[in-house]
Amino acid sequence: MTTTTSPSVLTLDALRDHWQGHRALTRRVILAIPEDQLFTFSIGGMRSLGDLAWEAYGVAAYNVQGLTTDDWSWNPPAGELPRDRAALLAAWDALTPQIDAALPAADPAWFTVPQQMAWGTMAPLHSVQYGIDNEIHHRGQGYVYLRALGIEPPAFYER
Amino acid sequence: MTTTTSPSVLTLDALRDHWQGHRALTRRVILAIPEDQLFTFSIGGMRSLGDLAWEAYGVAAYNVQGLTTDDWSWNPPAGELPRDRAALLAAWDALTPQIDAALPAADPAWFTVPQQMAWGTMAPLHSVQYGIDNEIHHRGQGYVYLRALGIEPPAFYER
Repeated sequence: MTTTTSPSVLTLDALRDHWQGHRALTRRVILAIPEDQLFTFSIGGMRSLGDLAWEAYGVAAYNVQGLTTDDWSWNPPAGELPRDRAALLAAWDALTPQIDAALPAADPAWFTVPQQMAWGTMAPLHSVQYGIDNEIHHRGQGYVYLRALGIEPPAFYER
Repeated sequence: MTTTTSPSVLTLDALRDHWQGHRALTRRVILAIPEDQLFTFSIGGMRSLGDLAWEAYGVAAYNVQGLTTDDWSWNPPAGELPRDRAALLAAWDALTPQIDAALPAADPAWFTVPQQMAWGTMAPLHSVQYGIDNEIHHRGQGYVYLRALGIEPPAFYER
């Protein structure tokens, strides 16, 4: 990804708003599925919406760790993640103010310099973008689960 | 979306690479589904992958029109879109060099100024981001269609 040869157009504030807007929408999707389907319903052998949401949470937490400590090692929580909506949402919400604090505070020069990360060499910017895209991707899959269950999903354009 | 109060970190070149990388992945998803399912298979009353891909194409074409002419009026093609993979891919590929030409050439100041667009007041940056996100969202749904058909989708992280 080229990051230095043309003018920059996305501010750290705008990226934070973009990220938080997507997280707020994903939160509504987590709430839209019946609790007894959150960790059980799936299509085509895929993971449940709850498992996909825990993955999105984990990637976001990884990025917050890297943004705030410059430690980009992958340290997933030990043991099984709770298969429980309240626990998922509590973790989700605990991360929200951490993102608000981490992103506008990042050094913009450091933010676009590639370094060694859990998934190869990339800049913090790229890692954050990847996490957001991955969350959009899996949330879109959650929309299919909701439709298959006869449930109207939240509006995609509302953030 | 706040765009002026903190340092900018995403260049027009990087945004173009990000956009084109996602379009290349969507193209592989369009190719991964059997042609006789592209415009017929769906889950939960949703649109087919072919219809979703035509939508992504239409939003991208709208953004290219706006980026290159500053005309943000919505002018969808008259009549039915071809329900045919070759026609979809031909349109898709014709847009690729237009995006390459349009994005790095955009005036970075103009790019973040909100103006009246088909879906309300937003900056060209926001419209391009929305189009990419919408494509990721619908492509994620296409992954579920592929899994439901017993087909392994392309790797999400390859662009």
